[in-house]
Amino acid sequence: MADNVSEELTHKSTVERIRQLIAEGEEERLRVYLEPIHPSDIADLIEELEEEERAAVLRVLPGELASETLAEMEEEEHPEDLLLAEPERVAELVSELAHDDAADIIGDLPLEKQREVLAQLPLDEAHELRGLLAYDEETAGGVMTTEVVAVSENATVAEAIDEIRRQAAEGEDFYTVFVVDADGRLRGTVSFQDLIVSQPQRSIREITVPPISVVPASMDQEEVARVMSRYNMVSIPVVDPADRLIGRITFDDIMDIVEAETTEDMLRFSGISGEEYLRGGVIQSIKNRLPWLAVALSTTSVAAAVIYLYRDTVEQIVILAAIMPVIAALGGNAGTQALAVTVRRLALSPERARFWSVVLKELAVGLINGAVIGALAALVGSLIPGGSLLLGLVVMLAMWGNLIVAGFAGAFVPVLLERLGVDPAVASSVFFTALTDIFGFFFLLGLASWVLLPRV
Amino acid sequence: MADNVSEELTHKSTVERIRQLIAEGEEERLRVYLEPIHPSDIADLIEELEEEERAAVLRVLPGELASETLAEMEEEEHPEDLLLAEPERVAELVSELAHDDAADIIGDLPLEKQREVLAQLPLDEAHELRGLLAYDEETAGGVMTTEVVAVSENATVAEAIDEIRRQAAEGEDFYTVFVVDADGRLRGTVSFQDLIVSQPQRSIREITVPPISVVPASMDQEEVARVMSRYNMVSIPVVDPADRLIGRITFDDIMDIVEAETTEDMLRFSGISGEEYLRGGVIQSIKNRLPWLAVALSTTSVAAAVIYLYRDTVEQIVILAAIMPVIAALGGNAGTQALAVTVRRLALSPERARFWSVVLKELAVGLINGAVIGALAALVGSLIPGGSLLLGLVVMLAMWGNLIVAGFAGAFVPVLLERLGVDPAVASSVFFTALTDIFGFFFLLGLASWVLLPRV
Repeated sequence: MADNVSEELTHKSTVERIRQLIAEGEEERLRVYLEPIHPSDIADLIEELEEEERAAVLRVLPGELASETLAEMEEEEHPEDLLLAEPERVAELVSELAHDDAADIIGDLPLEKQREVLAQLPLDEAHELRGLLAYDEETAGGVMTTEVVAVSENATVAEAIDEIRRQAAEGEDFYTVFVVDADGRLRGTVSFQDLIVSQPQRSIREITVPPISVVPASMDQEEVARVMSRYNMVSIPVVDPADRLIGRITFDDIMDIVEAETTEDMLRFSGISGEEYLRGGVIQSIKNRLPWLAVALSTTSVAAAVIYLYRDTVEQIVILAAIMPVIAALGGNAGTQALAVTVRRLALSPERARFWSVVLKELAVGLINGAVIGALAALVGSLIPGGSLLLGLVVMLAMWGNLIVAGFAGAFVPVLLERLGVDPAVASSVFFTALTDIFGFFFLLGLASWVLLPRV
Repeated sequence: MADNVSEELTHKSTVERIRQLIAEGEEERLRVYLEPIHPSDIADLIEELEEEERAAVLRVLPGELASETLAEMEEEEHPEDLLLAEPERVAELVSELAHDDAADIIGDLPLEKQREVLAQLPLDEAHELRGLLAYDEETAGGVMTTEVVAVSENATVAEAIDEIRRQAAEGEDFYTVFVVDADGRLRGTVSFQDLIVSQPQRSIREITVPPISVVPASMDQEEVARVMSRYNMVSIPVVDPADRLIGRITFDDIMDIVEAETTEDMLRFSGISGEEYLRGGVIQSIKNRLPWLAVALSTTSVAAAVIYLYRDTVEQIVILAAIMPVIAALGGNAGTQALAVTVRRLALSPERARFWSVVLKELAVGLINGAVIGALAALVGSLIPGGSLLLGLVVMLAMWGNLIVAGFAGAFVPVLLERLGVDPAVASSVFFTALTDIFGFFFLLGLASWVLLPRV
């Protein structure tokens, strides 16, 4: 706690210092002040500034640092004016970046601006970026970079080291050396260890190991993340349908994807459109949440209609009105539990979640938890003022039934959605609370009017 | 969809084949069948087998493959009999593993067994493992491995390459070469590129770059994950208080941590004890969920008491009974939305979530969404049979008030918990639905008995 507070203070005073230097027009001092800071930290610091101030910082920073900072910034915080008005500056910034980061930044611009920026770049780079921009953003092709370090399987170790040296000098960090045949088809990888340890005249083919896994450009990024995480891969090759190496995806891209997809899942699950930017403004939050609340209003109106149907019962046994929300809340809670486990299970390994075993398990959990909670509720129902043994029985059965429905539906709906190719996280708890409300009220009031009403 | 189904079929038939070979005692054919499969995939296949079958597979697999498979298996699926009864076999298995994986497996055994296994290992290895076992499992020390590739800053490039070759020959994969001074203090890292490109007689000191970040052994693993993800680090050095290099943590450990912590957060958030193993059995799920349901039963009983307090009002204006659950559900939904955004925000960057800006934002969202949903609800309230303009007004105010409370509390409670050093994800939606129920009923029934009752 103390740590967070002191971190926050340092952060605040640094932001203030930057703001001041910008206001005073002290460009040189601002550059000197920022130069020793890591681009991720600069991105973080300037996120709180006004858009023009962010643009000022990006103009002042030296080439590569400015580029890296831009790449580390959230898309929502890119200074639009700078990006839209100065295609030369954008071209300058992206030319310093890895192709995947460059394509991300260019891809966010309007088509017209994309063309202007690409026109400013060297022909071969523009060509590669156009290729990357053609892939769907959420696929392996959209995430990969085309800058791979690759050697021919026919080279010797000494030739390969020369080649790597040449390629590394122009590119960014690399973690894996890929081996390709004469047609560019991927044959495998060689490790640095083997390169260093092997005799210089040895053939690369002899020390090549087959790739642990390869992915096609069309594979969904979430699936790529699962493959890489499963096999602990630092870098995964992307191949075209003829098995030719066209790019690679590295662990850091994957970490970003996992973070983003998890946030999206959790927000969807809670009834928020997946795109809500966590640090976004009030207006955006309202836009992302209000539609779901309106949906909830109409679905719970069905629950209200069930009560209206039984209004005579409620009028005569008014204690039911106090019990209703207890049944509804417990059903909602149990449903959310089943739903969360199933959604997370599907997110981590969809192919391992067998349909009926998942559903049957949740059904069993609902059956047993329902019996226990039902018995407790029965006790309360028979002891409260105005309660009776019979009321207790009705409460127990309604609670039990509702928790069974909650468990079953909590597992069934997301597994079904997954089968249908829909993200199971959209089976949000908003629907669920309404669903269990409807069943809960129906069970409670239906039973009450059947069993209790004749005796009132 | 079709893909998942066909994957599932292949998976099923492979599992069947393994089961059959075990039953027939065909050890040799089982070994040949499994040898070409990646340990992660074997772990996945045998998870569905009985415990004795899993033990049989681990006995049949050749040394390193058996070890890697064991390391990839979920802790809950380790064949206990084998681990408890055969310390020699366990020692054999763990001696093939990286020290962090070895320590994880040994750390799960009872203390007595840990001693027996360590006694079977070479002295120096046992010593290192004892050191690792002493760290809290969820800190950098508990996650790191002590097998680092490090060279002296005083070495030449040629000497360093020899040293790396020697160290690499005995160790596992490495991604970063660390540079230390004569006292073992970390000075930085050298890249493979620079090692390959530099003149053999050049001093390592000249090509050493300072580490982007270092972490102490006591740092919480979630914090380590944030640092590595922030700076895109493939491997991070762990240092003691005197800055001596004592280990390293790699990206694959971090991916596992992020996965596990995210699951834990999402489950807690949904009212499930964090330890629920996603593919665990019914009994375990009941144990993890029932206590929360019991808590929910007692908290919603407070909501029920509020209704009981106003039972005369409900008896006289029975339409209120139908409106109650709508107010409660919408409050619960809006609260869950605010809670999810805040919990996720805190999980991703606690130091950036400023207390009042978070709370004020959610308050503002609640204020506006509450006004819109309140107006819609008022419309319904005045048009339904038995409704009136005045009832509509009461419904609107109650809805509005409840959504403001939901927004405020949804942000305030998790931020407060974070400040107090408690995981904000424990502010689960179970509490929230109860909280918003209580306020919602209080607003609705209180207003109704004040405004509507005198006119009935």
